[in-house]
Order: sequence, then C-alpha cells, then structure tokens
Amino acid sequence: MSVTKLVLIRHGESLWNSENRFTGWTDVDLSEKGTQEARAAGELLASEGFQFDFAYTSVLKRAIHTLWKVLDGVDQAWLPVEKSWKLNERHYGALQGLDKSETAAKYGDDQVLAWRRGFAITPPELTKDDERYAGKDPRYAGLSESQIPLTESLATTIERVVPYWNENIKPRIARGERVVIAAHGNSLRALIKHLDNMSEEAILELNIPTASPLVYEFDSNMNVIKSYYLGNADEIAAKAAAVANQGKAK
Amino acid sequence: MSVTKLVLIRHGESLWNSENRFTGWTDVDLSEKGTQEARAAGELLASEGFQFDFAYTSVLKRAIHTLWKVLDGVDQAWLPVEKSWKLNERHYGALQGLDKSETAAKYGDDQVLAWRRGFAITPPELTKDDERYAGKDPRYAGLSESQIPLTESLATTIERVVPYWNENIKPRIARGERVVIAAHGNSLRALIKHLDNMSEEAILELNIPTASPLVYEFDSNMNVIKSYYLGNADEIAAKAAAVANQGKAK
Repeated sequence: MSVTKLVLIRHGESLWNSENRFTGWTDVDLSEKGTQEARAAGELLASEGFQFDFAYTSVLKRAIHTLWKVLDGVDQAWLPVEKSWKLNERHYGALQGLDKSETAAKYGDDQVLAWRRGFAITPPELTKDDERYAGKDPRYAGLSESQIPLTESLATTIERVVPYWNENIKPRIARGERVVIAAHGNSLRALIKHLDNMSEEAILELNIPTASPLVYEFDSNMNVIKSYYLGNADEIAAKAAAVANQGKAK
Repeated sequence: MSVTKLVLIRHGESLWNSENRFTGWTDVDLSEKGTQEARAAGELLASEGFQFDFAYTSVLKRAIHTLWKVLDGVDQAWLPVEKSWKLNERHYGALQGLDKSETAAKYGDDQVLAWRRGFAITPPELTKDDERYAGKDPRYAGLSESQIPLTESLATTIERVVPYWNENIKPRIARGERVVIAAHGNSLRALIKHLDNMSEEAILELNIPTASPLVYEFDSNMNVIKSYYLGNADEIAAKAAAVANQGKAK
C-alpha cells in the first residue's frame, strides 16, 4: 500500500505568546524561544529522515520563519513554498493586541473562554478605519473587501481553511507529494477537525503544541491511516497544556 | 512617466568564497560574514524605502538565505517567491569543489582565467556517475536530462537566464510590479549583459560586488532608464575588486 505523509506544524512561541496578548492576524515575530523551538523541529524532522516536495504556510512571519527553520533543518531551503492568507491564524477582531489576562479581568474568564473556544462565537469586529484593518496591508491587496475579515470564529476560519485544503493541498498529496504545512493554532485546528471528522466540542478541547511536527499518513484514497506527533511525548503534552492555560486571568 | 524599479542582488560571501573554491551548483551556505552582508543589504533597502511585489531566487541556499535576510529587512517575509534553477550560478563542471589557487597552480593562471572569464569556454565536464552530477539531486527532478548541465560557460548560462527573464520576470515588471532577484555572480552577469546590451568583452570585465543592491529603473516600455548601486561607493568598489582577485594563484 502506498502511504503519503503530511506534516503539520504550529509556529514556535511568538513575542506576543510570551506576553500573553491576542495576536490573530497581527504580524508578530517568533520569540528567541520560538526560533529555537522551530530549529529543534527541523532537526527532529531531519533525524527522522523527512524530506518534502512542497511547503505551505500563512502570510504571517511567525509561521514563515518557523517554516524556514524547518526547511533549513531538512536542508531543503530550495523547496517551493506557497504562502496563503487562508492559512493565517483566526482573526481576533477588536481583541487583537490586547493582553489576555487584562481582557479576562475586564470581561471575565467565561467571556474570554467563549471568544477563544466558542465554535461560532466571534470577538467584537474591527472597524475598517482601524489601523489594524487588514485591508490597509499590501499583502492582502489581492483580496476582495468581502474576503477581508473584521473578526472570525473557528467556524468562519474553517470556511477558508478547508476549501484551501481541498483545492490546493489535497490534490498535491493525492499525487503522492510529501507536504509540510507551517501554520497556526486555529488554522491547524480547522484542518484537523476536517481530517479527523471531529465534533465541534472535541475540536474546542484540542490544544496543539507549538513547533511539534504532527504527522498524518494517508493511503492512496486519501483516507487518514493514522496521525502522531514526532518527539518526546512528555514535552509535547507540557506544550499543549501551556497553550490551554493561555487567556486565563492571572 | 511611470518608472518601475528592479533590484538585483548577488548573494553574500559563501563558505567557499572565503575558502576560494569553485562553487557553481554546489549548495554551499553563506558564511557568517555573508549573512551579515545580506542583513545589511536588507536594512539598506528598508532605509531607502524599498518595498516589493515579487521575489525571484535560485535553488541554491546562499542566494535563498540572502533573499530571506533581504525580505526580513524590508519586513516582507510574506512576499511570494519563485525559486528557479535557471537563476543558479554558472555550473563549473569538474572544477566544482576544487580550490581556485591550487587549480591555478596546476593549470596556470591563464587557463583558470580562461575558464572563469572566457565567454564561451567551458570547464571540463562532470560525468553522470559523478556524485556532483545534478541529476542525482531531487531539486532538479523536474528537469529533462538535456537540461541538466555537465558544465557551463557564461554563454550557455545566458541561454537559460535570458529566456527565464523574458518569459517570467519581464512580464511582471512590465505590469508595474516591483521585483527583487537574489542570485549569483554569473547568472546576474548574464542578465546584466542582456539588460545593458553589453559586449562579450565588457561583461567579462564586470565584477559584481556581493550583497550590494543594484537598482534598474525601467520606463513603461521596459527601456532601462538608469542603473545604480545603493550604498557606499567605496565599499562597493572594494567588494568588486575582491571578487576580481579571486582565482589568482597565491
């Protein structure tokens, strides 16, 4: 049986992860720790013998820089890379840039948890005159106004991630190409919900550790055979727990 | 009059530049100095207000890593990038990996100068069973056997660079897109000969300094209005002279 492997990787810790702020589409870079995490992921993939045919990432530098470290790790800087806004993190609307603990203290843990983990609940919208509005950023110049989000839920994130998967990524894997995707907590959650046919409740409980390569194996009919993280299980669990604890008032 | 700017940049010093070895298609990385040069070029472009719509580079990491530093410098890691073997350095055949001074001592300065600077003179061919043969490298898997060089002269380098320019890069610039190309001494020389309509003799005398942004301005009919290096003229001249002195016996 022919097996094709896909690797998903969430970006390493960002400067705002460590500051505990809502990031969304804000183009925040990796922290030094995040850079080290990404480098370690590349080395891990290399030590496991991974090589790729194509790479996807978002248009946000924390994912792009993670991918670059991964490509250097497997010595494939030359790999073709497609960067798409459709793999961006979920847009956090007017919460982008706010401190998660302060937001929790102001609105309450329950409201913040609802915004973060309610499947179809959107944070307050950005207005188009807000300096954070993505329509002002040249990287989104090719988008129609209706495509540029003012806020997103996980549900609306899925509405852009899954079609991108079906139209761009899946056909490549179906041809036997080995693909790596460097993206974000919620764009990967959107994809994993689709791949594993998970319920809304189950996906909301899923915490994806940073910079931990997640391997999906597909058969020749694009059925998922199995999926597993590479690396040390205890470290991965600790990273997932750290992600789960973000956004609680301190 | 509408003016569109193109930026050409030769990669920073590589590990083999500093060792004075023939590199060609060998995938040697930047040296620490080369990384610093590339970073400085990105900062220079940013300080001059450059922004881009599209980037091209080769499939060799010394050019790719130079581009990545440039993109980070102008804060455009998100930029679409096309990597093509057609922008690779000239293939140096069986000389790849040899020390330039030793080669000069063995064959004589005149023969080495002829190989390096003879317009249509090719170094000895690689054989297809040589471990350095590019047909063994997955990044060239899409090439036909006749496309994979065993050696190249500047003349045969031009035969791949100029069609790539005409078919891929030029139409983009003609649409008003701002393009940056990170490449190599001889692939850039091939392009510059074409853009400036230079003689074979003149292009052989041209030494392109490392990691120094070279700006071409085009009018709306794709005529070159002018070209110029950014940065300190004395430093650029010193870098060009250092390149010219490579390959002489020590």
